[in-house]
Amino acid sequence: MNFKNPFKKSFYYVVFGCGRLGSIIANELSAKGHSVVVIDRDENSFENLSFDFTGFTLVGEANEIEQMKEAKIEKANGVFVLTPDDNTNIMIALTVKKYFNVDNVIARVYNPKNIKTFAKHKIEIVCPTMLASNRLKKFISKGEKE
Amino acid sequence: MNFKNPFKKSFYYVVFGCGRLGSIIANELSAKGHSVVVIDRDENSFENLSFDFTGFTLVGEANEIEQMKEAKIEKANGVFVLTPDDNTNIMIALTVKKYFNVDNVIARVYNPKNIKTFAKHKIEIVCPTMLASNRLKKFISKGEKE
Repeated sequence: MNFKNPFKKSFYYVVFGCGRLGSIIANELSAKGHSVVVIDRDENSFENLSFDFTGFTLVGEANEIEQMKEAKIEKANGVFVLTPDDNTNIMIALTVKKYFNVDNVIARVYNPKNIKTFAKHKIEIVCPTMLASNRLKKFISKGEKE
Repeated sequence: MNFKNPFKKSFYYVVFGCGRLGSIIANELSAKGHSVVVIDRDENSFENLSFDFTGFTLVGEANEIEQMKEAKIEKANGVFVLTPDDNTNIMIALTVKKYFNVDNVIARVYNPKNIKTFAKHKIEIVCPTMLASNRLKKFISKGEKE
């Protein structure tokens, strides 16, 4: 429930991976008044969550279907797949889309070389390295014009 | 020398760190016809460079002034500081700016919590995690509007 604005719609999100990126997103979703479950195999990773975080945490291997059922993933309005392993992320994203019929899925790609594999399976992606290299390429171009 | 366009200005760049991001940028600079030196403590990291890479590689601790002198860093038109350690990056960026008087420096920030420290020293930054989280926040907002 969002006490700041009771008329605003609240959604249910699942976040896989509670590292740097996962915790930022989980905190953001919680701050916006949404319901959140964060899943990570390492209990210590939940220390990245803010003091105000109101969601739930689940310890476990992210790629187990039982874990996903426990998280009631079929009811999720959106799923963020943000573990540091590309193969794990592909497997989770595919299972969420195909087995649980949740279409609103976005996955993190660690190695830009794997972007094509995600695209082939129509998984929406975010690739921090690619975003950063695009930013740095602009820095190069700026220097060339000076 | 850029054989594609001999009239285009060619510059000299130094790249610290030849991981995923460093190698993309070193390859890009080389492909654009610029002179490049890439420094990394791990010789194996240079395997990330493309077959076409025409620059030079230096093995060594990135934060040693001798290493920087060897790379003739004072003549660089731009320096990319892309090791995976924020403290190393701050130290390198400061040394390049203050000791070698090269002002065109951009550093990678691993942990968004360190952005302020870089800003305090007026070091231009790129933070892949922050770029990715901004992208993911847009994904959340899009879902809320649907």
